[in-house]
Amino acid sequence: MAGRQVQRTVQASTLRHRVGLHMRNCPTILKTELLAESSHFQIEALHLQFSNGQRRIYERLRGTGYRSVMLVAMPDPEHVLMVREYAVGVEGTILGLPKGGAEADESYLQAAQRELCEEVGLRAARLTELGELTLAPGHLCHRYRVVLAQDLSPCALDGDEPEPLECIKVPLAQIPERVASGELHEARAIAALFMAMGACGSGLDPR
Amino acid sequence: MAGRQVQRTVQASTLRHRVGLHMRNCPTILKTELLAESSHFQIEALHLQFSNGQRRIYERLRGTGYRSVMLVAMPDPEHVLMVREYAVGVEGTILGLPKGGAEADESYLQAAQRELCEEVGLRAARLTELGELTLAPGHLCHRYRVVLAQDLSPCALDGDEPEPLECIKVPLAQIPERVASGELHEARAIAALFMAMGACGSGLDPR
Repeated sequence: MAGRQVQRTVQASTLRHRVGLHMRNCPTILKTELLAESSHFQIEALHLQFSNGQRRIYERLRGTGYRSVMLVAMPDPEHVLMVREYAVGVEGTILGLPKGGAEADESYLQAAQRELCEEVGLRAARLTELGELTLAPGHLCHRYRVVLAQDLSPCALDGDEPEPLECIKVPLAQIPERVASGELHEARAIAALFMAMGACGSGLDPR
Repeated sequence: MAGRQVQRTVQASTLRHRVGLHMRNCPTILKTELLAESSHFQIEALHLQFSNGQRRIYERLRGTGYRSVMLVAMPDPEHVLMVREYAVGVEGTILGLPKGGAEADESYLQAAQRELCEEVGLRAARLTELGELTLAPGHLCHRYRVVLAQDLSPCALDGDEPEPLECIKVPLAQIPERVASGELHEARAIAALFMAMGACGSGLDPR
């Protein structure tokens, strides 16, 4: 848990994958330095040269949880299962979706099944990958694979949470008002629900 | 830019504000330690005791940009202005929304007006705060105030970007397909667009 200071050059990373990236005019990465790290995070400085010759140093954060999943678990076509849990970043209990990291020997779908079981006590007969989300890609390397879970049945498996999560069944129709009221504010969960509503052909018509 | 290692106890933070937080059953923060920091980030360890007596140490990341805004700028009721820019976290050019940090002497709306001018060369006669987004509140303290910008007119002000951002006018009706295709993957932007579509009474009906 103790922090360590490091100032060594690491190899150019190979993050150019998975999400839809447009590569034209990308700056050249001249050097990557690891500035500091803890057991969960690494702070890196990247020395960049843009195509117009300008040079800048940008910082970014790497986390340990590179292969993470977020679940949209639907017990029926009108509802989604959400969880309330403590979030230390905002020092409060927040409304979100079941989620977690994939172990080294797990596929995203296997991780989704395990997290669903551990966090809400269910397993899904049908799991569908909907795509991948980034959070603040200018500063963070984190990504979440979004998985739709359907045809749910009970499953018992202990999770690694210090206390059980509160699971609630929320009508999809209530999502816009829960966002508007500020009760649901986590961008990652809102975006995953948006993807699921689109995938379910739920008449998401912005007009 | 050089990293520094620190191992001192800092005062309990006062982040319990702004977003909708449910405070029941929150664990007690026994101690907060600053593990490492750079010019942009601070990695903290929080020693927690949950209401059932369990103790855990959780890490979280603080950034320097606490007062940040994200803009949904609409030139007309059917379109939104989006930007393509380089994002070092994913080492590619991504589709997102205009955004930035508020200066110490700026309100969120003043910062929104300045960022709109710097990044897309427009000013808004009408600015509306739609709410606030968190990203991954279990690990990050970052928050973005979402501002809807309407009644737009030209404005010239140089930004601090190393190269001009590419600005594109996107039909709101195309947002679901751009998300489904993976072209638009930034959770923060997707969530802000969802908030704006709801606020504009755009018939967001998840059924």
